[in-house]
Amino acid sequence: MKLLITGGAGFIGARLARTLLARGTLAGRTIERLVLADLVPPGAALLADARVQPRVGALREQCAALREERFDGVFHLASAVSAECEADFDLGLASNLDSTRALLDALRAAGNAPRLVFASSVAVFGSDPALPLPPVVRDDTLPTPQSSYGIHKFICEQLVADYTRKGFIDGRSARLMTVAVRPGRPNAAASGFLSGIIREPLTGLEAVCPVAPETAVALASPARTIEGLITVYEAERDAFGGRTALNLPALTVRVSEMLDALEAVAGAQARERVRFERDPNIERIVGGWPSRIEAGRSLRLGLRPDVDFRSIVAQYIEDHPASIITRRQA
Amino acid sequence: MKLLITGGAGFIGARLARTLLARGTLAGRTIERLVLADLVPPGAALLADARVQPRVGALREQCAALREERFDGVFHLASAVSAECEADFDLGLASNLDSTRALLDALRAAGNAPRLVFASSVAVFGSDPALPLPPVVRDDTLPTPQSSYGIHKFICEQLVADYTRKGFIDGRSARLMTVAVRPGRPNAAASGFLSGIIREPLTGLEAVCPVAPETAVALASPARTIEGLITVYEAERDAFGGRTALNLPALTVRVSEMLDALEAVAGAQARERVRFERDPNIERIVGGWPSRIEAGRSLRLGLRPDVDFRSIVAQYIEDHPASIITRRQA
Repeated sequence: MKLLITGGAGFIGARLARTLLARGTLAGRTIERLVLADLVPPGAALLADARVQPRVGALREQCAALREERFDGVFHLASAVSAECEADFDLGLASNLDSTRALLDALRAAGNAPRLVFASSVAVFGSDPALPLPPVVRDDTLPTPQSSYGIHKFICEQLVADYTRKGFIDGRSARLMTVAVRPGRPNAAASGFLSGIIREPLTGLEAVCPVAPETAVALASPARTIEGLITVYEAERDAFGGRTALNLPALTVRVSEMLDALEAVAGAQARERVRFERDPNIERIVGGWPSRIEAGRSLRLGLRPDVDFRSIVAQYIEDHPASIITRRQA
Repeated sequence: MKLLITGGAGFIGARLARTLLARGTLAGRTIERLVLADLVPPGAALLADARVQPRVGALREQCAALREERFDGVFHLASAVSAECEADFDLGLASNLDSTRALLDALRAAGNAPRLVFASSVAVFGSDPALPLPPVVRDDTLPTPQSSYGIHKFICEQLVADYTRKGFIDGRSARLMTVAVRPGRPNAAASGFLSGIIREPLTGLEAVCPVAPETAVALASPARTIEGLITVYEAERDAFGGRTALNLPALTVRVSEMLDALEAVAGAQARERVRFERDPNIERIVGGWPSRIEAGRSLRLGLRPDVDFRSIVAQYIEDHPASIITRRQA
């Protein structure tokens, strides 16, 4: 089978690609070709796999060619991130809304109704002043996005549902949770500290936590996130249930519990590298995110949240051994 | 002040225009100019008013000029209807989604953050197989549209919310209920019979009712619908509450009660002109519509549903005296 991952060189996209290549099959079929479309080429390890074909460039510009090409399945992950969308309103609409519509129209033109998993986001949820978010967010909770990024994701969910209803694609929207622990350098995202307060201390660096220790957040590890995308892809249409987006499972954890886990795995010295320096702006943003997710339909597909945050820290250490300072070294 | 009504020559648009011109003011300001944009010109009575300026042509093509023009307020009613959208997927997206985005971008370019009321629709609600509609639909009920028209309306609600959040416009989305009794000739809409079974008997014609007498529907009279649009326009931002669409109030009534009202107003002969001939296709569509609406935010703005269906029939007779056969004539 021939698969397309948009955003295939990003953190989630590349990890999904590695996982798919290692499995060799998807929904019972052998993966012969894996096209990774992104603004940049994927890493050397992915490029070395003969099944991988990189396509570098803006997705919207790639879509004309996609009309002539038939994919069996698509994971649509490409997206401008929230900070970009807030900084440049038009870029956000073009990158997220116009590109998705161009992709859906290309798949429709191809005519084989491919299966498509759209990576939506927990960012569709936000607290509208008139309709505050309920304490627990469920699959039937009304999203009231409070960012352009969340608006775009929610709009694309609607397009995926309608193209599916019309039989143009077999689309499924899955809302990804905040993924931690992400590798790499600190970034400007409001959620960045949720990875940073673990990743930096493990490499011997200091990290700043901008919210109170009792702040609760909903997280998923990279492995569980990839598992979610693949499970949603492989689900029978009836098992997915309807055409409405589903929430992937999330572990609810307090920042203090995250640091407990860091200390349990890497020692008190690691925890001491985290300094609390509250940032009202980030506290307000993070406070608007749902911290408790009831992912009913995901659970029925057999998906589960991470068992605890300690296992998430252990997963990060296992995935990135070279970047870790052990207790002895520290 | 200078106002724009898109879809200003349609049934609701023209009635809104007449009401605004008769009032002379909106939100405490004198209406000096009322631009009616539509595919066709408005009727002679509207054209005769010196304040009215017709603009004939596709909305999307009119938007370039709108960028140079400042309106104080906009009622955005223009839309391809549901049957058109189902028959021509691309036309639906162009007419409803692209035109709305072009309008919002034109208003943003004008730079004066005008107030805008977007006429959304109860059609955003539908019964997704996995998420059946609750018995009572509220402002925080998750819409799962089951038509392209409903999808477009729901997407445009999101755009209006985000352009408002960014301060480009002061937008408010109000979901119109099924409007009855509509004048004119029978049309192909699945909801058409809800007007036809009253309108045709009143003019001495036979009408077919395609659903069972016990079928419950949620309706609003033309007058209450116009009142809703104006009240939402005039509401202070805080009173409107947040940026999420609100449901306008609806009267829940059974078809048998509609016919009771017809009989009470126009006699048994009128009722006898309605023949039941069930159409499974229309029964399925109508059965998927919400019949009970809890319009909490509208009620707090002082809006109320019609008191009963008899008053709706009386309103139709008062508005269209020339088309009515009285009991004596019948």
